Amino acid sequence: MVIRVGLIGQGFVATTLAVGLERIKRGEIPPYGVPFQDLLSYRINDIEIVISHDIDEEKVDKSLYEVAKKYFSTLDIPESLSTIRVCRGIHLSSVKDLPIRARGLEDFMSLERAIEKIVSDWEKVHVDVIINLITTEHTKPLTSFKELETKIHNNEVNNLPATYAYFYAAALYANTVKPLVFVNAIPAIVAKNTALVSKAIESRILVVGDDGASGATPLTSDLLEHLAERNRYVRSIVQFNIGGNMDFLSLMNPTRNIAKETTKSSIVEDILGYNAPHFIKPTGYVETLGDKKFVSMHIEYISFNEAIDEIVINMRINDSPALAGLLVDVIRIGKIALDNEEYGTIYPINAFFMKNPGPREGKSISRIVAYQLLIDWLLKHRALKKVPRYSVYTLEKFEY
Amino acid sequence: MVIRVGLIGQGFVATTLAVGLERIKRGEIPPYGVPFQDLLSYRINDIEIVISHDIDEEKVDKSLYEVAKKYFSTLDIPESLSTIRVCRGIHLSSVKDLPIRARGLEDFMSLERAIEKIVSDWEKVHVDVIINLITTEHTKPLTSFKELETKIHNNEVNNLPATYAYFYAAALYANTVKPLVFVNAIPAIVAKNTALVSKAIESRILVVGDDGASGATPLTSDLLEHLAERNRYVRSIVQFNIGGNMDFLSLMNPTRNIAKETTKSSIVEDILGYNAPHFIKPTGYVETLGDKKFVSMHIEYISFNEAIDEIVINMRINDSPALAGLLVDVIRIGKIALDNEEYGTIYPINAFFMKNPGPREGKSISRIVAYQLLIDWLLKHRALKKVPRYSVYTLEKFEY
Amino acid sequence: MVIRVGLIGQGFVATTLAVGLERIKRGEIPPYGVPFQDLLSYRINDIEIVISHDIDEEKVDKSLYEVAKKYFSTLDIPESLSTIRVCRGIHLSSVKDLPIRARGLEDFMSLERAIEKIVSDWEKVHVDVIINLITTEHTKPLTSFKELETKIHNNEVNNLPATYAYFYAAALYANTVKPLVFVNAIPAIVAKNTALVSKAIESRILVVGDDGASGATPLTSDLLEHLAERNRYVRSIVQFNIGGNMDFLSLMNPTRNIAKETTKSSIVEDILGYNAPHFIKPTGYVETLGDKKFVSMHIEYISFNEAIDEIVINMRINDSPALAGLLVDVIRIGKIALDNEEYGTIYPINAFFMKNPGPREGKSISRIVAYQLLIDWLLKHRALKKVPRYSVYTLEKFEY
Amino acid sequence: MVIRVGLIGQGFVATTLAVGLERIKRGEIPPYGVPFQDLLSYRINDIEIVISHDIDEEKVDKSLYEVAKKYFSTLDIPESLSTIRVCRGIHLSSVKDLPIRARGLEDFMSLERAIEKIVSDWEKVHVDVIINLITTEHTKPLTSFKELETKIHNNEVNNLPATYAYFYAAALYANTVKPLVFVNAIPAIVAKNTALVSKAIESRILVVGDDGASGATPLTSDLLEHLAERNRYVRSIVQFNIGGNMDFLSLMNPTRNIAKETTKSSIVEDILGYNAPHFIKPTGYVETLGDKKFVSMHIEYISFNEAIDEIVINMRINDSPALAGLLVDVIRIGKIALDNEEYGTIYPINAFFMKNPGPREGKSISRIVAYQLLIDWLLKHRALKKVPRYSVYTLEKFEY
Repeated sequence: MVIRVGLIGQGFVATTLAVGLERIKRGEIPPYGVPFQDLLSYRINDIEIVISHDIDEEKVDKSLYEVAKKYFSTLDIPESLSTIRVCRGIHLSSVKDLPIRARGLEDFMSLERAIEKIVSDWEKVHVDVIINLITTEHTKPLTSFKELETKIHNNEVNNLPATYAYFYAAALYANTVKPLVFVNAIPAIVAKNTALVSKAIESRILVVGDDGASGATPLTSDLLEHLAERNRYVRSIVQFNIGGNMDFLSLMNPTRNIAKETTKSSIVEDILGYNAPHFIKPTGYVETLGDKKFVSMHIEYISFNEAIDEIVINMRINDSPALAGLLVDVIRIGKIALDNEEYGTIYPINAFFMKNPGPREGKSISRIVAYQLLIDWLLKHRALKKVPRYSVYTLEKFEY
Repeated sequence: MVIRVGLIGQGFVATTLAVGLERIKRGEIPPYGVPFQDLLSYRINDIEIVISHDIDEEKVDKSLYEVAKKYFSTLDIPESLSTIRVCRGIHLSSVKDLPIRARGLEDFMSLERAIEKIVSDWEKVHVDVIINLITTEHTKPLTSFKELETKIHNNEVNNLPATYAYFYAAALYANTVKPLVFVNAIPAIVAKNTALVSKAIESRILVVGDDGASGATPLTSDLLEHLAERNRYVRSIVQFNIGGNMDFLSLMNPTRNIAKETTKSSIVEDILGYNAPHFIKPTGYVETLGDKKFVSMHIEYISFNEAIDEIVINMRINDSPALAGLLVDVIRIGKIALDNEEYGTIYPINAFFMKNPGPREGKSISRIVAYQLLIDWLLKHRALKKVPRYSVYTLEKFEY
Repeated sequence: MVIRVGLIGQGFVATTLAVGLERIKRGEIPPYGVPFQDLLSYRINDIEIVISHDIDEEKVDKSLYEVAKKYFSTLDIPESLSTIRVCRGIHLSSVKDLPIRARGLEDFMSLERAIEKIVSDWEKVHVDVIINLITTEHTKPLTSFKELETKIHNNEVNNLPATYAYFYAAALYANTVKPLVFVNAIPAIVAKNTALVSKAIESRILVVGDDGASGATPLTSDLLEHLAERNRYVRSIVQFNIGGNMDFLSLMNPTRNIAKETTKSSIVEDILGYNAPHFIKPTGYVETLGDKKFVSMHIEYISFNEAIDEIVINMRINDSPALAGLLVDVIRIGKIALDNEEYGTIYPINAFFMKNPGPREGKSISRIVAYQLLIDWLLKHRALKKVPRYSVYTLEKFEY
Repeated sequence: MVIRVGLIGQGFVATTLAVGLERIKRGEIPPYGVPFQDLLSYRINDIEIVISHDIDEEKVDKSLYEVAKKYFSTLDIPESLSTIRVCRGIHLSSVKDLPIRARGLEDFMSLERAIEKIVSDWEKVHVDVIINLITTEHTKPLTSFKELETKIHNNEVNNLPATYAYFYAAALYANTVKPLVFVNAIPAIVAKNTALVSKAIESRILVVGDDGASGATPLTSDLLEHLAERNRYVRSIVQFNIGGNMDFLSLMNPTRNIAKETTKSSIVEDILGYNAPHFIKPTGYVETLGDKKFVSMHIEYISFNEAIDEIVINMRINDSPALAGLLVDVIRIGKIALDNEEYGTIYPINAFFMKNPGPREGKSISRIVAYQLLIDWLLKHRALKKVPRYSVYTLEKFEY
């Protein structure tokens, strides 16, 4: 059974997802970076990207094939991408500080009409899963869905995050067409917003969010768990991040940066149980680094009998593929939840795949622990063909 | 209720354990590095070191206070250590290549008599827990306990590992005095030897082993788990270790080194599920590094859409305190098992605390997963005052 | 012959200098970190700190002994420091954003009178060398000494850097008392300001500056030289710096940070000959790191036949002692120049000891190359007892 | 004017040299990694590789084009390489422990005849420069050239390093055909052997050697110089090297490893002036790392007032291109010396380009200092079109 996916924001992540998926489906490359590979009830081959929205004049009305050509100049891009079109989306000034020539539907019509247009785009291709991959934006807390409804109705295009407009479109779609999964892969607050999650339940939406767990943060969470489990007292944590892609360029804008920093810093207290002195931030932009960012981390802690230990970690990691690989499973697992008529948001899914897992009271936990929760959830939903390697659930029975 | 502990090998780990314990008991320092701090049914204050055995002429017949003075020249050593005596033990040439002036009981009497002497030393102070902390030695596989019995009876002092002689002493003690915990904190094969574990069950011994999980290996296991859970394909793993303590000096001997390498390398295939090309070894000795070793690790892996990522980890870590901190809990949890009349060896305990966890078929798993197993074991034994931070067991109930 | 030194800003560097000097003089510690140790015509023992100025109410009117006690709580502070007094200096709001209770002489009298007071303080103790070690401040370019004179005369205390007021005091002192060395060890622009250097020549001042070459920048300069000499093409340079001392706290203020960044970044183009894309900045403050900062650097370059190489450097370095050690030689070499009646500023001295070497057209060069220039200067001034290890000058003659 | 080059050992370095040279000559790539690019009196375009010798049956009688195809499967190999032939050379069991099917000329004829054959191969193409790039081999010290002559005459093929046989061939060639440059780019002892250098003078050979300064050692020399110039006291140095090319595989053989270790370790005492405790070794082989080795270095030192600093360096570097790039200049500068009738060995050339610079008493010095010596040598020989960037010689005149 096919899972129909719509992308929002045809940047590096969305394009890597589209290209990588096709290459795996054609048997060109193994499914590395896809956590559950061939273990889920849905196969990777069941995923079909059917539509995309963007506001960059360089991309609108192009095919995914043409867009992919620009990102991967030396790669043999699958022809199958030439049938998927990038439609014009909504930007609501979310990119006004970036070097992009952007025009959204709202520049041509009222916001309400623009949203209806998007819903109708989705309806034509019967999307099951929508993935929000627009540039990081700061979202002011929303106290009620009503507030959002009013703003859209009054065409208040300023200070309205594009993410909210897309969520509104998703709600409209779910109400009038069919249930869907809304994956919020960026730091905007959706799955952690109680008002939006309530609306999601009401409209039969499953929200997966917030902020896809690629980059250094997931690893940091497991490192801190490792130290916490040994009661090693962390004296300081420093984590620098620098890259050369659009995401880093956009984070040079202080308000975006704060959105990101909050996501990254929350793990310290959530996992350690105390707020160890830390500096964890996207720190800079150097274009020649490209999508392969450089991360440097320093942790100093006190061990038994007052010994002082230090760990330094340096990484060169490709952020976009890491996130794209996770999304392959978010799509499939989100659809499994949908098939089970589970709406709102599901912590065991978010805890593993997202940096800032909803619902509002959901804490950032070690990813390795979250993985165990997810295995448990998948087992309970009979969604696993077999248990990968080992888990506490299988070990428990076997070992003693 | 007091837990009486006997140490074998009064080196840096044993001395750090003795000093750190007293300092915690006197309220001088917090119990950092002790995983379960004040959460267990036994308190740290319940532990009492009552005896020690060594074969270094510089230590035999000294008090722990005198020995500790040499290791920690600037520290204010607790006076309470002056009542604990270092008795002469057995070496069986386990240190013949090292710059130590060693004489064991077997140099003065038959091996059988020597072992009886040790049992009688333990009996006088009613030990509950014995911790093997002698220098890393290579142990050839033992096919039956009978084989060991015969060798001892025939006074075959060559090629008999001292660890086996001490295990024999433990069996004698358990048979004639009372049950006990035998902690094998070094790479010798005890908990993974089926013959010895059978004997342990028969004699009412709990074996915890093998090879205490300090150093870089436990962290590596969690790193590899982190990658495996995302299906990232590891192309190569390199891990260098260099230090300046007696352990590193002894590992310059190739046969000892192989014992250690096996322990360290097994995690690669156990956790990843395939044998990624690797070089994981204690690599050198530079005296001025002292007990704070330097570790350097490089991991290269393939992520989604053929992206190549790299992680480099450098650590300056104090091995001896790390192990000593773990032993504080091994002592307490071992005693809990003993109170429950559980003998032989217990995988959920070994999997968290040991590099090479028994029984024979016990795999090296991620320590974070092992911690969940251990929490489960402790909960089932009503040995936890409260659940630390969070665990899959508590999260499961709470979240959905 | 004694060299009398006056300090400005009794912070960590100045205090380390005072304490370290006395300990070396008493034979307690070797002169590690002092480049020319016992090779110069002046001995380390010839240096005497005779006075200090500060504006922190916690320090003013205390002895150096009392101040040192606060910085080095566990150290046995030399009694000899108890005779040196911290006099009240000038701050001119240079510290208004910092958590310091500051009052300068200018809060009690006119700026002109304040400066005269300082000159008279110096006169009483016959200073030969003045070292500016106040908190990093931003100095707007000064077009003429006249401009400075007018501002002081008109008591324009706002927006006047304290460094300029001290330089003015130095000029007054040189004009009325005797020639002196003015060491500008902070990023303020003095040796690189043509107007001030002209005034220095006129008043018989030797300026050494600007910005003492401690930290990661000197090493970076040698790394870049190493690459440039092999024509390796640098694609990107990233350098993060984070620390927990007052210097890092003050650099969280953006205008101070810019002063520092300029100093650090200029080496890229100066040494490579092209402006490789880079991010080189003091990046953060975490108090628990203390004076031992953490530096992380990443360099990617292209080698022969398009090979891509990477270097990652991580350092834990103590900034204050590194600078203090250099100052021991700046004092002695400055005095040698003074004895030779050389005023203004001297590039071969600045190029080795300073991050931003004067005069204005002086480029940042590799420190190893600068060292050769300095050796040459010292040889020409017969100031070296013997040539240290080797130099191009000695090798040239010897080898072929 | 053309410089005719003969290669010995058509491995990765020789092949990279051949391919990179052609690509530069065709304007395909810039001359990155070639220190003196277009500054020398000879141009890069003047270099022509005319012959190669190897003993690997997979390479003998192939063209360089065919060999290059195997090393660079995805690269467009210059057709011009198809006219250069790999002739059969001599191995003298230098590769008997490696997975190579090797047959040398000496397997078909007497060693004397084999050497004559090689001389005649060279004669046909009029070689000016011979570069020894065979696998690292251990060379026992040779006390006289006579000793070598006798061994060859008596056909003593065992325990005779192939390097010595090739040097003998070079002497024969120089005596009978014309002067030549013999570049010993491997750790064998040639330029540091007094007997061989005497013979070189007599036969009109210029020896450049020993052991081409690629890898981490040159950088280490500049790092140590940097510390030594500040009188920072080095407590320990650790340097690990691991790679996946034939060089690392061959170094797993202990006798080869010792040859390499000596070269690498000598810099510590040579540069610091004392033998700081160190571990500097090629440490392992992991095939998947390929030619891009991983280096990890840790240095701990004492700074002013007993402060302890640490530097950790991690590198991913391509060894073969680094060496190949240097060789482009060794060829040109060697030829310049030849044109000036300078024979034997020249320290200022060796000191920059070689790890273990001859003559026998030549010390390993900082490469940045060596570069200054080399500039001086080039200036004196009017071999520089212009001075690169800056040097002490130009700075001296200009600055004061």
